[in-house]
Amino acid sequence: MEDATGWLAVARQTFSIIGILAFAISGALLAVQKRMDVVGMAGLAVVTATGGGMLRDVLIGATPVAALVDWWMLAVALCGALVVFALHRWMERLDKPVLVFDAIGLGVFAVEGARKAIDFGVGPVGAAFVGMLTGIGGGMLRDALANDIPAVFRRDSRLYLLPALVGSSAAAAAVHLGYGHWIVLALLAALVTALRIMSELLRWHLPSLKTEAIPTIRD
Amino acid sequence: MEDATGWLAVARQTFSIIGILAFAISGALLAVQKRMDVVGMAGLAVVTATGGGMLRDVLIGATPVAALVDWWMLAVALCGALVVFALHRWMERLDKPVLVFDAIGLGVFAVEGARKAIDFGVGPVGAAFVGMLTGIGGGMLRDALANDIPAVFRRDSRLYLLPALVGSSAAAAAVHLGYGHWIVLALLAALVTALRIMSELLRWHLPSLKTEAIPTIRD
Amino acid sequence: MEDATGWLAVARQTFSIIGILAFAISGALLAVQKRMDVVGMAGLAVVTATGGGMLRDVLIGATPVAALVDWWMLAVALCGALVVFALHRWMERLDKPVLVFDAIGLGVFAVEGARKAIDFGVGPVGAAFVGMLTGIGGGMLRDALANDIPAVFRRDSRLYLLPALVGSSAAAAAVHLGYGHWIVLALLAALVTALRIMSELLRWHLPSLKTEAIPTIRD
Repeated sequence: MEDATGWLAVARQTFSIIGILAFAISGALLAVQKRMDVVGMAGLAVVTATGGGMLRDVLIGATPVAALVDWWMLAVALCGALVVFALHRWMERLDKPVLVFDAIGLGVFAVEGARKAIDFGVGPVGAAFVGMLTGIGGGMLRDALANDIPAVFRRDSRLYLLPALVGSSAAAAAVHLGYGHWIVLALLAALVTALRIMSELLRWHLPSLKTEAIPTIRD
Repeated sequence: MEDATGWLAVARQTFSIIGILAFAISGALLAVQKRMDVVGMAGLAVVTATGGGMLRDVLIGATPVAALVDWWMLAVALCGALVVFALHRWMERLDKPVLVFDAIGLGVFAVEGARKAIDFGVGPVGAAFVGMLTGIGGGMLRDALANDIPAVFRRDSRLYLLPALVGSSAAAAAVHLGYGHWIVLALLAALVTALRIMSELLRWHLPSLKTEAIPTIRD
Repeated sequence: MEDATGWLAVARQTFSIIGILAFAISGALLAVQKRMDVVGMAGLAVVTATGGGMLRDVLIGATPVAALVDWWMLAVALCGALVVFALHRWMERLDKPVLVFDAIGLGVFAVEGARKAIDFGVGPVGAAFVGMLTGIGGGMLRDALANDIPAVFRRDSRLYLLPALVGSSAAAAAVHLGYGHWIVLALLAALVTALRIMSELLRWHLPSLKTEAIPTIRD
């Protein structure tokens, strides 16, 4: 496995920052919709932006978790909250850029998450799961704290988990088989981003069962 | 402490699979009731079936967590979601088998969880807590993600946490005192299962305070 | 860094117990308001009282987590639930003592959390974050399980996260720079407690954006 260096490392870092910013913005926006104050905006921005990586590191045992070591992530997440605070009157026009940024983050996090899991001794199937969770975990924690059912699980949602899973599975397989060159991983991240954006443009969504067919369970 | 081998190991594995299946089915059913799509069914099935063990491993420091190493658990959980997808018209008739399977899982997870905690250096009181959490944690995460108050905490619930706690406490004490033979642990798991099923049959439930007696707290 | 010994250690332990009791009481009270049974009261008391420390230990890799090793914390948390069970008719008069006890716990947990993070190799910025989370994490888990938006994020909330963050940041800086004497840390904990109580007395609260200004996000 060859690592990116020089301008490649810069490019990877840049894409990570773009993703963290977009995730943080989605957290801060939900905080305002849920009638939270500025502490809630900052808090939900940080949870959304760093939660997926925290879940990844806790599950694979990479502690202290990355967001505590590379604390620039916390700073970038707070910048995302600041963006919402400063530009909230124009957020509607920023809808599409944020969607694209979010898709970039999903790709980078899913692929990097799978690679990190393999580095920590997880097998390819587990690594595919961890990579997917790195991509979607922040948003799931965001929705859980904001008292919503996770957006990725909802019936009206476009594809979000599946593109991440496709990318993390391919990345885990590639790294496991010794093809984890940075070019391969970058292409897989781009594939996730493309699938995610196409899912919005083409309005893909998944089937679901009719609720009436299911009796209420007892616990 | 003597471990089960041969057909005993097979029996233990079989009961684990039965439990994972039942937990996954309860997650997938709740996903349909909450109007999620098939991704939500699969996701909530995996969370419910493996979440308790993930909490256990994260709290005691057994990382990477078991579900990432023994990834057949993820596969079995997805089978549980498939069962709901295929048989959802007949789930009402499967109510009782699922209840029994769930009780078997509760027993196996509570007892095994306590034993694993002791293996990782946790004292008997902590191990009893961890074992109980292994049994009920998946359902608690399921309810938190589905935006419900945990079923085990609700006023109308039958006993669920208490049978798990009885079994995990006894198992922790037995292993701590050197009586952790597989026969003892298997009997304790069976006791949890029996208590859980009796609680449903005999409609046991716990007392609760009247809500009116409590003023609203400020935070 | 010099540690407290003798009667100082006793004092520190006493303040920890006061904080755990107050956190547990707030959890048990919310459980009654949310129509849970006695198991829910005990469960939410334990989660609220020990959840912040569990999050801290899991994120910095201090496993098994403290509440499993020092199981007297679980016992104290259960006592908090017992207090609510026994005194629920008089809880309204206990409003102010509980508020003060809770503020003491916030101070102790935020400062101790930051120090423990630095002991485990986390840098000062990460340690400030971890200390703050130690103080507020139990209440956030409590609210998430009880199906509420975290109180610390809500628009009508008094200051809670900010006093904890001020204290944990100062404690992290002090320990990092070699001024982590117990007197310094004790003063910082007292500062957090004072800020928290003043925030209630003087009705401080934070600004928030108008919800109407934010369009609904899609996911």
